[in-house]
Amino acid sequence: MQLENYALGRWIKGEGEGQALYNSINGELVATATSKGLDFGEMMDYARKIGGPALRKLTFQERGLMLKKLAFHLMEKKDIFYKVSWATGATKADSWVDIEGGIGNLFSNASLRRQFPDLPYYIDGDAVKLSKEGTFIGHHICTPKRGVAIHINAFNFPVWGMLEKIAVNLLAGVPAIVKPATATSFLTEVVVKEIIASQILPEGSLQLICGSANGILDHVTMEDVVTFTGSASTGKMLKSHPKIIEESVPFNLEADSLNAMVLGEDAKPGTAEFDLFIKEATREMTTKAGQKCTAVRRLLIPANLVEDVQIALGQRLSTVVIGDPNVEGVRMGALANKDQVKEVSEKVQELSKTQEIVFGNLNDFEVKGADKNKGAFISPILFLNSDPFKYTDCHNIEAFGPVSTLIPYNNLEEAIELARMGKGSLCCSVVTADDDFARDFVIGAASMHGRILILNSDCAKESTGHGSPLPMLIHGGPGRAGGGEEMGGKRGVLHYMQRTAIQGSPTTLTHITQQYQYGGKQWEDNIHPFRKHFEELKIGETYITAKHTVTESDITNFANVSGDNFYAHMDATSLEGTIFEGRVAHGYFILSKAAGLFVDPRKGPVLLNYGLDECRFVKPVYPGMTIGVKFTCKEKISQEKRDEEDIAKGIVRWLVDVYDETGETVAIATILTMVKKLNQE
Amino acid sequence: MQLENYALGRWIKGEGEGQALYNSINGELVATATSKGLDFGEMMDYARKIGGPALRKLTFQERGLMLKKLAFHLMEKKDIFYKVSWATGATKADSWVDIEGGIGNLFSNASLRRQFPDLPYYIDGDAVKLSKEGTFIGHHICTPKRGVAIHINAFNFPVWGMLEKIAVNLLAGVPAIVKPATATSFLTEVVVKEIIASQILPEGSLQLICGSANGILDHVTMEDVVTFTGSASTGKMLKSHPKIIEESVPFNLEADSLNAMVLGEDAKPGTAEFDLFIKEATREMTTKAGQKCTAVRRLLIPANLVEDVQIALGQRLSTVVIGDPNVEGVRMGALANKDQVKEVSEKVQELSKTQEIVFGNLNDFEVKGADKNKGAFISPILFLNSDPFKYTDCHNIEAFGPVSTLIPYNNLEEAIELARMGKGSLCCSVVTADDDFARDFVIGAASMHGRILILNSDCAKESTGHGSPLPMLIHGGPGRAGGGEEMGGKRGVLHYMQRTAIQGSPTTLTHITQQYQYGGKQWEDNIHPFRKHFEELKIGETYITAKHTVTESDITNFANVSGDNFYAHMDATSLEGTIFEGRVAHGYFILSKAAGLFVDPRKGPVLLNYGLDECRFVKPVYPGMTIGVKFTCKEKISQEKRDEEDIAKGIVRWLVDVYDETGETVAIATILTMVKKLNQE
Repeated sequence: MQLENYALGRWIKGEGEGQALYNSINGELVATATSKGLDFGEMMDYARKIGGPALRKLTFQERGLMLKKLAFHLMEKKDIFYKVSWATGATKADSWVDIEGGIGNLFSNASLRRQFPDLPYYIDGDAVKLSKEGTFIGHHICTPKRGVAIHINAFNFPVWGMLEKIAVNLLAGVPAIVKPATATSFLTEVVVKEIIASQILPEGSLQLICGSANGILDHVTMEDVVTFTGSASTGKMLKSHPKIIEESVPFNLEADSLNAMVLGEDAKPGTAEFDLFIKEATREMTTKAGQKCTAVRRLLIPANLVEDVQIALGQRLSTVVIGDPNVEGVRMGALANKDQVKEVSEKVQELSKTQEIVFGNLNDFEVKGADKNKGAFISPILFLNSDPFKYTDCHNIEAFGPVSTLIPYNNLEEAIELARMGKGSLCCSVVTADDDFARDFVIGAASMHGRILILNSDCAKESTGHGSPLPMLIHGGPGRAGGGEEMGGKRGVLHYMQRTAIQGSPTTLTHITQQYQYGGKQWEDNIHPFRKHFEELKIGETYITAKHTVTESDITNFANVSGDNFYAHMDATSLEGTIFEGRVAHGYFILSKAAGLFVDPRKGPVLLNYGLDECRFVKPVYPGMTIGVKFTCKEKISQEKRDEEDIAKGIVRWLVDVYDETGETVAIATILTMVKKLNQE
Repeated sequence: MQLENYALGRWIKGEGEGQALYNSINGELVATATSKGLDFGEMMDYARKIGGPALRKLTFQERGLMLKKLAFHLMEKKDIFYKVSWATGATKADSWVDIEGGIGNLFSNASLRRQFPDLPYYIDGDAVKLSKEGTFIGHHICTPKRGVAIHINAFNFPVWGMLEKIAVNLLAGVPAIVKPATATSFLTEVVVKEIIASQILPEGSLQLICGSANGILDHVTMEDVVTFTGSASTGKMLKSHPKIIEESVPFNLEADSLNAMVLGEDAKPGTAEFDLFIKEATREMTTKAGQKCTAVRRLLIPANLVEDVQIALGQRLSTVVIGDPNVEGVRMGALANKDQVKEVSEKVQELSKTQEIVFGNLNDFEVKGADKNKGAFISPILFLNSDPFKYTDCHNIEAFGPVSTLIPYNNLEEAIELARMGKGSLCCSVVTADDDFARDFVIGAASMHGRILILNSDCAKESTGHGSPLPMLIHGGPGRAGGGEEMGGKRGVLHYMQRTAIQGSPTTLTHITQQYQYGGKQWEDNIHPFRKHFEELKIGETYITAKHTVTESDITNFANVSGDNFYAHMDATSLEGTIFEGRVAHGYFILSKAAGLFVDPRKGPVLLNYGLDECRFVKPVYPGMTIGVKFTCKEKISQEKRDEEDIAKGIVRWLVDVYDETGETVAIATILTMVKKLNQE
């Protein structure tokens, strides 16, 4: 079977025979792959001209809903993917991470839409006051890059590797071309077939290259984004491609690293944390047969506990059954192919020169339900390096399989230094019940790590583990790990957008951001804003309330109803040393009275008071002062209907500016109401 | 006079004669510069070992105060700098931008400390819930990179160029080595002499190279950060340096670009915006004799207004007196040196091949108070390109002097397309009173720009102008502009830090972040938290209040005191179509009553109610329900004393969790109080 490429809106077989791809369990031919004959430049233009404009027309809400629909669709088809995944050497648990982990990423990014406005672009951070009078302000917007995301992926996660990346670029409004590693591209191809057949994504938003993508970077221009996951050497070669440099193309590199797991000094045998460490280390060594860029390669152990760990871990590893994942009891499958077995074996040989193997044997191990000579099987290998400051290969040489090294440390400072000797890692774990140790380790090691997990018995049950990148946390790491950063919720989406500072009058910036900017034009309407439906409200429209003169009775009454008898309100005889000049009204009274002034009490489109954000009491209010409110429509956030029965509605954010008889602001707040839509369809 | 380098804690003269630097007004020798004999590798190690640790010990607050002190110190010495600046060819106004603009950057970054915690590291964004029960959560921290910032700067702003960059790396806790462009390094050296003499910065935080820094990048490692401002060709060469690639070193490139200024279609002669355009275009062409990476090179004009603009701009340019800035009436000084005159003249010749000069003459212009042959003077040159889609040199060739091209456009789409033809610019202006035009232009052009100014008569008086990067807004741009981003307030500081995702139990993450994380351990003390001073409060300490059963009278009384008679509270007969099952208590009553429950009324360390953040009413409260409050110390932000008389105090953020008789949360908020310190020194 020859894999197909999806390019220019159709499925295309490459020219010639193509590269043979084998089943890693039984060595049989699975498919051939070739991209020969594809015009990469044309594919990129197609993405820019067809996919990009279609995606940019959608708002974040629409793009998010599209991802949600796609996630549900792929979930329905997952059985197909699990079947194909077996041929990559994956156990059912490995496939779950790849397939359902990947689909989970689509769901997460779909939900992320709620952190973005209902616009095709994003308003970043807060407005900046740039002038004394406030007639000139600044803000930042992020707009989708008008290029294409080129994803060059690793062989270990053929589904997750694609979905975690396209979820993000699609949410940003940028089309993608995916080039999976050829070895396991037969699984990626099956998934893309389902995606394309579903017609959920606009045409041009996704294209697929099975086989070589050599030369594709010759076509990149400044608005494209390139990501690479895989070996550091290939990644760095691509990163220094003349076009990448010449056009200042953002290039995100995520390379394998020598990730460490640290056993805390407190976690002696018998503690819950000791057991957690053994369990997690075993899992991280053997999941995906150790073929994870986040897998643990270095186990840092208090020197006096090395023997205990060596025994306990050896025992646990010896229970890991290797073989055909379809056979009952098998816990670890095969490497991707025979080339990988050769590669890992060579690295193990190299490491053996400076450290001893204390568990496992490359030549002598059992395989269940499969032919050891036909499949790409390997044994877990545990090393011990007794002098890790002298023999540093364990910090530099990565065997991309079930291979780790035990490393003793004598104190916290050594643990930090050894962790840092990986020269930049994707992740690190510290297993400890001692929060001081955890904090000091984290602060000491953080600048060399993209992620640090602190595992203890409080969180172990719900922990997602050392090796799992999560969509809402960043993934990447400095130095050896490539210096990149992806995912991390909103952060990842912004990698596909250009941030632009905008400057101008508050009125102009209100118009562009669709958020009322302080100092912008406020205008009154004949109709009270509480009488308007969601669609009828305009940003900047302002209700100027009647006024109220605050009295001593107001304060007393409010104290009575709230029970708040704070001395500054109720015992004005003791105000020495405070900023108050006399009995002062409660802040919450001012807020409540403001509501009394701006609320229109009759039943109408306003459904409820949802909450408030950023309220500041900026000037004390004393009896005799007169307050009024400027109540301005600040921002509108449409909500989706949960079901057919649900009321169509949105959240409206209002600026509440309470001022006194001199015109000075005494309190300012943003309040939120839920408002019905006119259109109840 | 030979310039000195500051390296390894001392002022060092380079070996040999050095490069001769000339006064650009009179051609006289100013100084010689050489870095020969410096060991760059040793300088970097010195920064990493001496400067870095000293800076990392300081919290953001301490680093910010250090910058403030430095800013005040340099402001006192500014007269010295102005005198030296003259020799660079700068007018007084040009020098103001360079010197006081640079010092202003220190002040801005000093103030930025308030957006950071009083810790050496930063807590980024919000916590992420990673599990159903909430026992496993994630967050992000940013810690200072343990390397050195290497700044390779441009010749045009010898003071600002250094200060805008070091302000940021110093706030982040990272030391710097500055290499100013040799041509104007005599001014940078004078400033660094004052900085070092002041002893305000810890030793090792700043070193200076006057002369060549060739070879310095051979010494960079993964924790360093390199920035370059200057020509794209040099920048890109450095960016692809093997060490930069090999070690994944962050490299921020800020290159000159072909910035555009757009006259809106509405801005016809006679409008305020037409006049603003002429004034701003003249200013941008002639400030710093056009030697600004943000200077305007392309003037996009509605086709039917080209002649009007050509006449008005020509008239205005003809009033610009060129010469010795010390002479009365001179408005434009000289280029940096004779080499620059040659360079700019060549570019003008090149541009002349496809477009005509409509103002200015390279050979025929007046110079006031100086010898035209000795100084590096040049005339402003205005081109007209009638067919900018055919003759595209104006979008690609930059003459780094007072040179711009008039370009006609026929409609908004053309204006956007022409602006984008700069292939990535630092900034762009659109001068218009039409906010729809402004919005559509901004959204269309933004992804090719780092900054866009919308200028109209509302903001003109306070506008900082087209060409001024501002510390709180990002500076940089995609594509030709280098693909970098610096400044932008907090954003810029994070470039010198490593972001690390952290995962664990809420209690552990509370301990690391020093912010109470929801679900973390809460513990009660015998003493009410309102009776404790700032220092005595601990994150996580919780006061569990008495309970209160809400009554119908509560609602009526609250309506009376606040005046809020919203029907859901006061007219329970009409609740059809709402989410309410009956008469519901006011949200602000719940908040006020919560205060009544948690406030200790007696005079004590709590000075006032400062405000509240993020309050949500999550469950309706009906009469008969019983509420209580968990009141938890969430975060402490120390405040500085404004003066000797001021009370020593801080802001405490509290989590207010209001729950009902079933234990479910009905309202949640973060409130802020101002709390006295024990220590009033």
